[in-house]
Amino acid sequence: MQWYFVAALLTVLTSSQGIWTTLSQSNGKYKYDYATIPFLAEFFKLSVSSFFLWKECQSSSPPRMTKEWKSVRLYLVPSVIYLIHNNVQFATLTYVDPSTYQILGNLKIVTTGILFRLVLKRKLSNLQWMAIILLAVGTTTSQVKGCGDAPCDSVFSAPFQGYMLGILSACLSALAGVYTEYLMKKNSDSLYWQNVQLYTFGVIFNMGWLVYGDFKAGFEMGPWWQRLFNGYSITTWIVVFNLGSTGLLVSWLMKYSDNIVKVYSTSMAMLLTMVLSVYLFNVRATVQLFLGIVICIISLQMYFMPVHTLVELPQTLPATAK
Amino acid sequence: MQWYFVAALLTVLTSSQGIWTTLSQSNGKYKYDYATIPFLAEFFKLSVSSFFLWKECQSSSPPRMTKEWKSVRLYLVPSVIYLIHNNVQFATLTYVDPSTYQILGNLKIVTTGILFRLVLKRKLSNLQWMAIILLAVGTTTSQVKGCGDAPCDSVFSAPFQGYMLGILSACLSALAGVYTEYLMKKNSDSLYWQNVQLYTFGVIFNMGWLVYGDFKAGFEMGPWWQRLFNGYSITTWIVVFNLGSTGLLVSWLMKYSDNIVKVYSTSMAMLLTMVLSVYLFNVRATVQLFLGIVICIISLQMYFMPVHTLVELPQTLPATAK
Repeated sequence: MQWYFVAALLTVLTSSQGIWTTLSQSNGKYKYDYATIPFLAEFFKLSVSSFFLWKECQSSSPPRMTKEWKSVRLYLVPSVIYLIHNNVQFATLTYVDPSTYQILGNLKIVTTGILFRLVLKRKLSNLQWMAIILLAVGTTTSQVKGCGDAPCDSVFSAPFQGYMLGILSACLSALAGVYTEYLMKKNSDSLYWQNVQLYTFGVIFNMGWLVYGDFKAGFEMGPWWQRLFNGYSITTWIVVFNLGSTGLLVSWLMKYSDNIVKVYSTSMAMLLTMVLSVYLFNVRATVQLFLGIVICIISLQMYFMPVHTLVELPQTLPATAK
Repeated sequence: MQWYFVAALLTVLTSSQGIWTTLSQSNGKYKYDYATIPFLAEFFKLSVSSFFLWKECQSSSPPRMTKEWKSVRLYLVPSVIYLIHNNVQFATLTYVDPSTYQILGNLKIVTTGILFRLVLKRKLSNLQWMAIILLAVGTTTSQVKGCGDAPCDSVFSAPFQGYMLGILSACLSALAGVYTEYLMKKNSDSLYWQNVQLYTFGVIFNMGWLVYGDFKAGFEMGPWWQRLFNGYSITTWIVVFNLGSTGLLVSWLMKYSDNIVKVYSTSMAMLLTMVLSVYLFNVRATVQLFLGIVICIISLQMYFMPVHTLVELPQTLPATAK
């Protein structure tokens, strides 16, 4: 399978994730417990990966599987990082408003590039660095509040701690991605075996999160498993399977492609969601959305297009004076 | 002289032009007749060029000067284009509001690139085309009205004719620049001789504009020469000399460098003016100004940096999957 096919599919599914999540709400509120979504999505990913691993085990050439605890325990790390990240995210939102948080979130693109270089030792050309910065600038541009939008003056008026936490959040998010890529490429173990380890911990951590919620609520609404599917509709199930599928595609990209490809997919997905929202939810189209799309498309070409197609005709100099 | 030194000087002077023009107003209004400014600036440029041409004529190697009317009359064309442009600009503003007009004005960057290719037959690489589009996107981004700014909903709600006239205006502006470059590079005539021809027509056309103003006002305030310096202060004179100097630098760039360099200079100047306005006039700094600056700086590097510094390390491929 070609990496760009998977990347395109990830873009479509990530974008539809936003659309389906909005469609699953009634009057802007969730009728179900949103915390159950990632739990079921992890469970779905674990089931799918287990099935394919079982099929691989049946085949004539059995899959490579490293089973020592020394290796298995490494698959715990992404779950731990995501747990810390969720808490930092929560703390950040006590200091900054959601618009500022969304804009700070684009820093993730740049921090991913930096950790990609520092941790994975992958070298990028200056043009690719510029492309990564442009991608972050492009997504930010599309999110700039236009005039008439509310709330207004709040963007970039948050206390200093808010920005520090926002930057920490971007670093943790990037670290989780880069660490997962390291893990998936570390050896030639079967992708499905790696997934099974990753998602087993995912299921456990998400279950822990639901239990924690029960304790926090003093079991007033009963234990989580009794109301797991409360308020679920067809749309809610689509959200679950959609989220699970994007997760599987990300795992594939982490093993056979890289974090930058993933970052491009999800950024393009965000823009696609915004365009679709204009048609589906009557959201107002803005100049800044159009500008953001142009910037991101140019960034995409700068990063991925073969160098010779970009720089041909070098005999044409911009200035002839001496 | 190096082209980038002249380009940097043009950026500084174009930027200070905006600042001085604002400073020359009292309570947001001009105390003098603004139409006198370009007339006196043309006169200043003509005087300076005549002086240097005279000095060249005194030297041991006299300058090359083509004096046939067949050649001289070509220097009339830029003035005619600017006259048409001014009228189209006026017509456009009856359909679109000033904010939309300002945003449409950035199209000039792209139309200059297109005419540069079509008229002057200069080839650009894909990367340079992307850089030109990014420059237009960057300047537009910096001008997007933030929330809280007034007027608000008017941007991009103008009638169709407004946009068509805006595009025509961008084409005429680019045509004037590209035609002037063609004229200046057509032969190896002395730059000062070419300037003298250009500015003589400039003085005549600007004088015509003042006379036209007198006729329109029915000579109620007397003929233009009687009130030429009415309301002039030191600042007004600075505006005149500043405008004249930028004109001389543009002529130099048209002969020894090119239109794209000029477009970069003036775009960077616009951003510099916006930054200076934050400090000098307490204009609110916006996220979009910051984003616009980042985009334009990346565009500048993409266009002008030697290709090898941009694309080195080509062995690092973005994806390793097959």
